[in-house]
Amino acid sequence: MKRSLNHIFIVIGLLFLTFTGNAQSKMVYTDAHDLNLIGKAEDSKMYYHRLDTSAHQDIPAIVRTLATRSAGLALSFTTNSATVSAKWCTSKLATADNMTGIAFEGMDLYIKRNGRWQFAGVARHVSHECSESVIAENMEAGKKECLLFLPTYDETLSLSIGIDQGAVIERGDQPFKKKVLIYGSSIVQGASASRPGLAYPARLSRETGYNFINLGFSGNAKMEASVANMLAAMPMDAIILDCVPNPSPEEVLARTNYLVSTIRRSHPRVPIICIGSVAREKGNFDTVVAAKVALKDKYFEQEIRKLQKQDKDLYLIGGDGLLGKDQEGTTDGIHPNDLGFDRMLQKIRPEILNILKRYQI
Amino acid sequence: MKRSLNHIFIVIGLLFLTFTGNAQSKMVYTDAHDLNLIGKAEDSKMYYHRLDTSAHQDIPAIVRTLATRSAGLALSFTTNSATVSAKWCTSKLATADNMTGIAFEGMDLYIKRNGRWQFAGVARHVSHECSESVIAENMEAGKKECLLFLPTYDETLSLSIGIDQGAVIERGDQPFKKKVLIYGSSIVQGASASRPGLAYPARLSRETGYNFINLGFSGNAKMEASVANMLAAMPMDAIILDCVPNPSPEEVLARTNYLVSTIRRSHPRVPIICIGSVAREKGNFDTVVAAKVALKDKYFEQEIRKLQKQDKDLYLIGGDGLLGKDQEGTTDGIHPNDLGFDRMLQKIRPEILNILKRYQI
Repeated sequence: MKRSLNHIFIVIGLLFLTFTGNAQSKMVYTDAHDLNLIGKAEDSKMYYHRLDTSAHQDIPAIVRTLATRSAGLALSFTTNSATVSAKWCTSKLATADNMTGIAFEGMDLYIKRNGRWQFAGVARHVSHECSESVIAENMEAGKKECLLFLPTYDETLSLSIGIDQGAVIERGDQPFKKKVLIYGSSIVQGASASRPGLAYPARLSRETGYNFINLGFSGNAKMEASVANMLAAMPMDAIILDCVPNPSPEEVLARTNYLVSTIRRSHPRVPIICIGSVAREKGNFDTVVAAKVALKDKYFEQEIRKLQKQDKDLYLIGGDGLLGKDQEGTTDGIHPNDLGFDRMLQKIRPEILNILKRYQI
Repeated sequence: MKRSLNHIFIVIGLLFLTFTGNAQSKMVYTDAHDLNLIGKAEDSKMYYHRLDTSAHQDIPAIVRTLATRSAGLALSFTTNSATVSAKWCTSKLATADNMTGIAFEGMDLYIKRNGRWQFAGVARHVSHECSESVIAENMEAGKKECLLFLPTYDETLSLSIGIDQGAVIERGDQPFKKKVLIYGSSIVQGASASRPGLAYPARLSRETGYNFINLGFSGNAKMEASVANMLAAMPMDAIILDCVPNPSPEEVLARTNYLVSTIRRSHPRVPIICIGSVAREKGNFDTVVAAKVALKDKYFEQEIRKLQKQDKDLYLIGGDGLLGKDQEGTTDGIHPNDLGFDRMLQKIRPEILNILKRYQI
């Protein structure tokens, strides 16, 4: 009986595959290599890696691994298709409990309309490896400028975009100008925005037109000397340092000067914008966490204030109050949710814009 | 070699279990049955079920199943412990891709301080069945009023609260007054708030002091006659009907009158507050979805307006614009994220409060 049931399930499964195979075969797929993948700090041999990890053997192994995750990468293309779908494969990683699957290993699409990037749909994974998903359908005729944000926490292994038969898809432009690096923790990488395009560097890019580059490394951004050297060697028009959450207070005290000074030596006039830690809601009742975060912020501010005496292009935005005053702006006491990120952006976005304008960037 | 490695892993695993077992044994656990579980619409035989499903054989089977999920339930207790932990078991369900695991099968703790319920920490699951998690630690001495919000999407099977040895835990009061039912879809049930306490009925309760009851049924709330009859039989001081997202336009047209009239017959003077659908961002580019949502809202408004001619205690809050104008307020085009919920609450909370005050509720 059990074997017969198994046979029935296999037949049903094959019928289902045939059916969905037919449905999918209506879409015509283009590999992402033929479109324009934006958001990288540098060219990388592996198309979906943020950094060329083989060229950075001296940075910590975990940071190299995290650089293979596609946080902040977005595929720019244009199409007149009424439907946009995606086939993509990621590594086998399962979603973290403080994130949605859509953010961790899914994607979201934005289309430019009336001069503004507007949300159009999400690509939802059906397995932790390879999935196919309709992202948006029944759209009006006409050419659409599209930006598809890749998974923030998983490694993307392959991606192709599906359009209706007879429709056209083309490589899109780089829609963002200049290059503003953001070096930071899981919060920069995208935890806990509810989808990839809501990670704060991605929101900043769409909302300001500047090319903010996601150099967020979950559980890391500990200002290691090797990482400081790597950052300093990168081309940039400005850099944001949002790296207080993960190092210990002692590491903040010991490493801040080297990080800032090293970047400054390679980039004598770029604005360096530092942000205090927002990861403090867990310390609302936990007195040990509260004291630790306060000490890290104190050390960070102390080191930045010292450096500012001889560096008029170094800025500090305090972390206190950036997520609001009601403690509802995080998912888990550490990582901002979309409400926390929105409150944070309402405060830091105008400050960052003012600084960039001052430098005519 | 592989077998030797396996043996090593098993030994390491046992050592780890022994170690964490020792750590956990320091906590003293109290079963949730000895504390105060609030948030139910009615007494239920099964402690963690929202409804007594055996008493409602006529409602759709899927709604009965969804009533076993612990959305909106919260455990009220007081303790002077510096640490609060939880052991809990849920069904084997895995997290949906548009939610975090913390919201789906985890919990979050609020503590009253300075007259306000403040976030204190989350209980993070380590398996899809039974987990143990420290929620908050290193807290100051003194008695704390605690509210622990249960998983919104999973069925809770057991729960006990851990405190430090020598500390005291007691049954807490019902902190909220009156009873305001909210009947609705997944959006009411809690998708896609990032943790249970951020589901909008839970936020309304903490922020207003009224006892908002979560009757959200994911993918349902289709205004079936059997469900209308069940709702009408419940005690209530007011009811909110947020049930446009899931029924078809034809169902909205056919069923709205019966739902409202049936509740009204049993409750001649309670305010009935209707909310239009917020699930419309997917229709930002999808013209079919946009037309369908518009039609449902049109039918709903039309039916409510007709009823209002003879019912001065019937109110309608339109869904348009409740999530903001930038289309960033949802996780997946349908379910509000914490930003969307916050925007929604900023608009509906004062309207609801004004209505309740008008009735001296």
